[in-house]
This record gives sequence, structure tokens and C-alpha cells, in this order.
Amino acid sequence: MQIPAVIEALKPILGDRLSTSEAVREAHGRDESHHPAAPPDAVAFVRSTEEVVAVVKACAEHGVPVIPFGTGTALEGGIGAVKGGVCIDLSGMDRILRVSPEDMDVTVEAGVTRKRLNEELRDTGLFFPIDPGADASIGGMASTRASGTNAVRYGTMRDAVLNLTAVLADGRVIRTGGRARKSAAGYDLTRLFVGSEGTLGVITEVTLRLHGRPEAVSAAVCSFPAVEDAVNCCILSIQSGIPVARVELLDAVQMKACIAYSKLDYDPAPTLFFEFHGTPASVREQAETVQALAAECGGASFRWTENEEDRNALWQARHDALYAALALRPGARAWSTDLCVPISRLADCISETRADVEASSLTATIVGHVGDGNFHVIFLLDPDDSEEFAEAERINARMVSRALEMEGSCTGEHGIGRGKMACLADEMGEGVAVMRSLKAALDPANIMNPGKVLG
Amino acid sequence: MQIPAVIEALKPILGDRLSTSEAVREAHGRDESHHPAAPPDAVAFVRSTEEVVAVVKACAEHGVPVIPFGTGTALEGGIGAVKGGVCIDLSGMDRILRVSPEDMDVTVEAGVTRKRLNEELRDTGLFFPIDPGADASIGGMASTRASGTNAVRYGTMRDAVLNLTAVLADGRVIRTGGRARKSAAGYDLTRLFVGSEGTLGVITEVTLRLHGRPEAVSAAVCSFPAVEDAVNCCILSIQSGIPVARVELLDAVQMKACIAYSKLDYDPAPTLFFEFHGTPASVREQAETVQALAAECGGASFRWTENEEDRNALWQARHDALYAALALRPGARAWSTDLCVPISRLADCISETRADVEASSLTATIVGHVGDGNFHVIFLLDPDDSEEFAEAERINARMVSRALEMEGSCTGEHGIGRGKMACLADEMGEGVAVMRSLKAALDPANIMNPGKVLG
Repeated sequence: MQIPAVIEALKPILGDRLSTSEAVREAHGRDESHHPAAPPDAVAFVRSTEEVVAVVKACAEHGVPVIPFGTGTALEGGIGAVKGGVCIDLSGMDRILRVSPEDMDVTVEAGVTRKRLNEELRDTGLFFPIDPGADASIGGMASTRASGTNAVRYGTMRDAVLNLTAVLADGRVIRTGGRARKSAAGYDLTRLFVGSEGTLGVITEVTLRLHGRPEAVSAAVCSFPAVEDAVNCCILSIQSGIPVARVELLDAVQMKACIAYSKLDYDPAPTLFFEFHGTPASVREQAETVQALAAECGGASFRWTENEEDRNALWQARHDALYAALALRPGARAWSTDLCVPISRLADCISETRADVEASSLTATIVGHVGDGNFHVIFLLDPDDSEEFAEAERINARMVSRALEMEGSCTGEHGIGRGKMACLADEMGEGVAVMRSLKAALDPANIMNPGKVLG
Repeated sequence: MQIPAVIEALKPILGDRLSTSEAVREAHGRDESHHPAAPPDAVAFVRSTEEVVAVVKACAEHGVPVIPFGTGTALEGGIGAVKGGVCIDLSGMDRILRVSPEDMDVTVEAGVTRKRLNEELRDTGLFFPIDPGADASIGGMASTRASGTNAVRYGTMRDAVLNLTAVLADGRVIRTGGRARKSAAGYDLTRLFVGSEGTLGVITEVTLRLHGRPEAVSAAVCSFPAVEDAVNCCILSIQSGIPVARVELLDAVQMKACIAYSKLDYDPAPTLFFEFHGTPASVREQAETVQALAAECGGASFRWTENEEDRNALWQARHDALYAALALRPGARAWSTDLCVPISRLADCISETRADVEASSLTATIVGHVGDGNFHVIFLLDPDDSEEFAEAERINARMVSRALEMEGSCTGEHGIGRGKMACLADEMGEGVAVMRSLKAALDPANIMNPGKVLG
């Protein structure tokens, strides 16, 4: 590896937007996960696709790894420069290139964050629904196939991306499609890059489908005697064809944490948070139907609000779940796991997982995007106690095995990064060999985010 | 190529399910398109994934092409054995392997047709919504990324396939995922195979997402002074967030043909057919909103029906549009083109296309899944007049250029086959080189449906 040669080549192009300072390198060496930091040798703050091409070409010439970076909010260690190399920070590529309200789509540079995008869309009557919690960049969200609370209604980044621009390992630039709503033109390169976590190329621009802002929005909260009851209520709601916009589960431990952290006036019991989108009449119809289903499942104190302020407070509490959990054990580091199973298996999967946690010495909460069968255990670990990490590792491995036995996935939305490479092999079998062939075809020298996804 | 050696190897396995009869070969040499027939050297009527493996391995050993075949209803010549080889007829793989009503999914062998699937699902309250018109096989629909009238609401095969089983060019079998609703586990192999038209492997099993049968269904028909008015009504409906289940355009020529063929009591003017799914209240609300929008766009004689018999008659007339068009010119062969553009450009695209047709000597109708920006010109050509085919070719080429200028796609749903390989290159640019690399990685000897998609 010839880092000095790459730096030499890039200095004239990037000037002081190429940094080798320790602070900058440290800040680009890790995401929000428990995985150890691995700082890159240099960070390139790019401003255009052409600059990305220049960086990639210089790295390719010298066999130096390239690691794309958006906001650093990923959760499986996808960012660290485990084999050294140049980190491409795309946060300066933050232009909104085109909004087409009549086609309900938008093209943005990869560094635009989802909140900023929604601010810019405010006057169009449209919004970008995908909400992973963090204010992630659109490029990062595409790279990890992100989703979150709204996916049950609006889909994931797989569904949201109409096309993207990517810089390949040899510096070629491709655009993966046009703006038609559907296409049967050849292999689906868009979906190949969505979720590839920077291992096939650097995503520099993304065209997204947008949705009309719903005329009416309402939210409801309901607590249940047990997690199983809450999950059953969720399943019945989905099966009844109610187009729920969000349905989030917080288990009793998490709920207790949120009540304390966000000063909520709720019961410390397993709780579902719902949101409904539609016309005023349909929103009411949805909430009433869910209320009846909740009652069948033993739900208590069903509370429903159309007031925007109350709704925002409620969802802010949900979004702050991680911080609330951390407040349960000050100084702890959070490790958020991520599983997705067929919804019929969800209640079993969560209660068996809860039993694993109870049988251990660890503190952990459970939250989930349960409409999709997706949930997270948030372990609260002493950062200096390797035994606690080892215990969390063991429970996580059991969770993954259980999810795969249930025909689920080892990750619903966090991705593989460097944390789940062995799980991917368990899940995909021979499919991993196929992925390796595809990777080798597009990046034969393995310079694109090496040591991730496929190892 | 060593066809006799392959036949020798397969006879003990397949017996008389391996056919070299001329009639069988002819029947497997073409789809429903205008492309010339290219019969395979032999046809293998397989009954299991293992038998597909045996056929592929025998062919791989001897460098013989493999062409998968479902129902032969494709429209861009994807089936013909342009380089000879063995056709794998999957129609005997017609088992429904598992239905999970609680997860709203089903796993079928590739040869199951969509109508048969929906018959089998009748008692579950669920249905498989994708409807390309023909009673195509699920494997064929996955291979061509099929869609059709319901896609505006329920998506295309890209969205419907949860996972699939495929036999690769070297005989390896992969499954591309589990049954979780979403996954961020590695590259999206499912989407890579959906739309690959048999060029990366043979799809043998497919797991599909299902949808709840709507509680209420209503249909509406409305005619307009001009195609532009009809398209504008469609655009307004979509932009208003109405979850239209289907919205189909028939231009005046097509409408006249349908009135004559299906004995309809409608005006021979540009017409939209709508279908709405939901609760009784929401279906009424949707129809009323669309009626108001139609009036704004000059729509006349808005007719609305919740009666199932009337609805079925209406949609049968839409599905018979091709036969109705053919009846305009007995003895003609139909050539159905296929474009998809951003919806804001659809009215321009259709009227400029209509002008091209009017300026030519040809007879043609226009039908479209206009909610997606997707439409077809159906040319009615004298099968013995090569000048007419050349003229249709010229108009089609102009249509594709226009769609690409409008950031659309050369095919919304028919695929590339051997008819649109040059268009694919125009549309994807460097992306075609990437597709070639992927193809070479998985099928280095180019035995999987060679001469299609990438040439």
C-alpha cells in the first residue's frame, strides 16, 4: 500500500480538503456501534462525483482501500478502515439537484441528510418517508439498505431508490437507471448497489421516490399484559389490511426507561406506538379498527391523538429510546442487535430472546419495527468489561441462529458491516460465493471497503 | 456444441420427457412476439430442481446453451434458441409448496401460473396481485420482471418476490433469501435474478408476497375529449394520493376496437378504466374524488360500478384489447411495443407517438398502464409485408429515443429479450458493461440463454 503516493496525487486536487490529522482520522474510524475504531490513513472531503473519481483512481493505481463515509451513524462497523486506506467523506456533497413534484421524485447528492431533504421538500406537499432514527445521509442509507419506523407502510431504501450514480473501483461512473416508475431493462443495478455497503463502488447521487404528505395523521399508544399480546395485536392489524404507517414495540424495560427519560405519563408495560396516515375519515377508521383489535389482545388504556404536538412528543420519545436505555446505566456502551423474522414467528422469537437476556447477567431493552417482523435488543455494556461483551456476543449468536431457523434474516436494516460476516454465510450458504464472484467482477483488486460484508 | 452427447447423458434421467420432436421444438422456439422462431435442439420437461441441475450440468459439460421456458407468453423474443441448445420447460414444476396465510406469503415451483395460484389461494382471503394479462408462469414473470394493470398499487415482480431458488450455469443451486419482510444481509441476489431473463440461471422456485383481498372493489369508466385529458386525470389522481388499484388508458382506436369486439356500450373516445380497492367507505371516497378530478379534465359519462359481474365484463374487455385490436385487421400479426416514462411526460410522449403513427401507413392502437407512465403501441402488421415491419421498427426506434430523452425506460415490463438489446445500450451506457461483467462472473461460458439481453 502506498498511502504517501496517493496523498501526493490528491493534494493538488483537494488541497486542504485532504486531511491526515489525527482528530479527523479518529472521527472517521468508527460508526455508532460497539465495534473498535479503525481510523483511515487520510480523509478526502469531496465536493463532486469528479472528485470521487479522482480519489478512487489514485487509490486504484496504488492498491489503496477506499471507504465511503456519510454521517457515521451506521451500527455494524461498516466504516472502519480495517485495512487502512482513504476515507471519502461525502457530507460536502449536499446539493439537492432536482425536485419534480409532478413525478414525486427528487435527485440528491449522497451527502444530503434525510431531515434536510424533508425540510427542503416542505412546500411541495411531498415527503421522504424512510426514517432510521439517526439523521443519516441518503447515500449512507442507500448503501446499508436502511429502513426504520415507516417501512411497514412505505418500504425500505430498496423501494425508495429509483436510480443512483456510483463510481466503480476503476473510476468508471455509472448511472443505474432513469426516472421511470418501473423498468424491465436488464439487470437491476440499482438494487445491486443498494445494500452493498460501499463494497462495489461509491454512491454519489441518488434519485428517490417521494410520497404525498398525508392529509391527516393520527397516533395511538396502547399497553399490553405481555410482549406476545402486543405482537399479536400488531399481526392482526397487518393481516386485517390496515395500512398502518408505523407500529413500534417497546418492551417493559424499554418503556420504563422512556418514561423516566422523556417524562412520559404511560404504564411501564409492553407498549405499541401506532401512526396512521390518510384522509381524516380513513385515519379515524384505522384507529378504531386497531383499538378493537387491541382490546381483543388484552390491550389497556388505548390512547389516540390527532394533535401534532402530542404526536411529536410521542415519537420523539420513541426516537430517544437509545438514549433512554443508556440512561438506565450511565457510562454504558450500547450494542444494538438487529433481526427480522416472518411475522408469524415474531412473538416466539422475542419472548425466547427475552428469556435469554433474563438468564444472563446483562441489562437490555427490546424495541422493534414489529409490522415488518424486525426488532432490536439493546445491550447496555460496561465498556471496560470484556466478559459482558462476550456474553452479549453469545446471546446475539443464539438470536441469529434462532432467526435463521425461523426463515428470517440476521439483519433487517443494520447491514453486515464487519459484525455479521459469519452470520451472512450461515444465512446465504452458496449465495455468499455468488456475492464474492460479483464483488470480484467489479472490484478485482478488492479496494472498495475491504474487510466488510464478504470479509 | 455437442447436442447428441447432452441427449445421451439426459435420456437415462428424463426418458421420454426429453423430446427432440419437431412439433415440440417448434412450440418452444418462439413467444407471442413478432420475432422469428428459433427452435431449440431438444426440450427437457423437468419435474424438479434436481432435474434442472442435471440438465444444466450436462449442457455445461458440453458447452450447450440452456433456455428456460414457462408458458411462452413473453413479448420480446426472449425464448428462441438463437444459438441452439436445450430448452428447459418448467411447466411440469407446478406444485404450490407452502402457503403461510399468517405471513401472507407463498412458495411455488416456477411453472405455477398466476391464475392457478389465485385459484389455490381462494379460501385464504389472500391474492397475488400481479397481472400481466397472459396467464404466465410465476418463474417466467420473475425472469422478465413482469407487472401489468395492478402494478400502480401493488408493485411489480421486483416487489413481489421475497426469495427464489436458482440453478446457476455450473449446476450450483442458490436460494436468494429467507421469508423475512426485509433484510439488509449482503447483495440483493433476489433482485439480481428478477428480470435477468434466464441469462444468469434457471429460476425453479419462487416465494411471493401476497396481499389481503380487498373488502370492497369498485370500478369506474370515463371517456375524455383527448388522450392528454385522460392522462392528466390519471396524473391528478396519483398526485392526490388516491391508492388507485388499476388505471388503464385505451385510446380512441383501441376503444373502438374493444366496443366492436366485446360489444361494449361506451363511446369510441380515449377512455380510462379505474379499479379501487379498500373498505366500502374508502372505495366510495376514492371513486368520488376521481370523478371530481375527471370532471375537471373534461371527462364525460363517468360510470361507476360495484357489481362484480359488470366489473368482470369490463376488465375482460380490457384484457381482450389485443384480440380486439387484431380483429381490426384480420390476419394481421400484432407487435406490441413497451415504454415507460416519468408521468409528467406521459401525455406528451403518447401524443407525439400517436402523431408518428398517424404520419405512417400503419394501423395501431395505444393502451397503457398509465398510473406507472407505462404504455404500449400495438401495431397490426401484414405478416408477409416486410415494409410494414420495417416501418414499425422505425417508429419503435423513435419512440425509444423519445422515452430516453424524457428520462424513461425502453421497456416498462416486456424486457429486453433479443428485440431491445441496442436500446438497452442506449439507455444504460456504461451500465451495460457492468451487466456484462456480472454475467461473465456467473456464466463464463455464456450458456445461459445466450444472445439475449446483452447479446
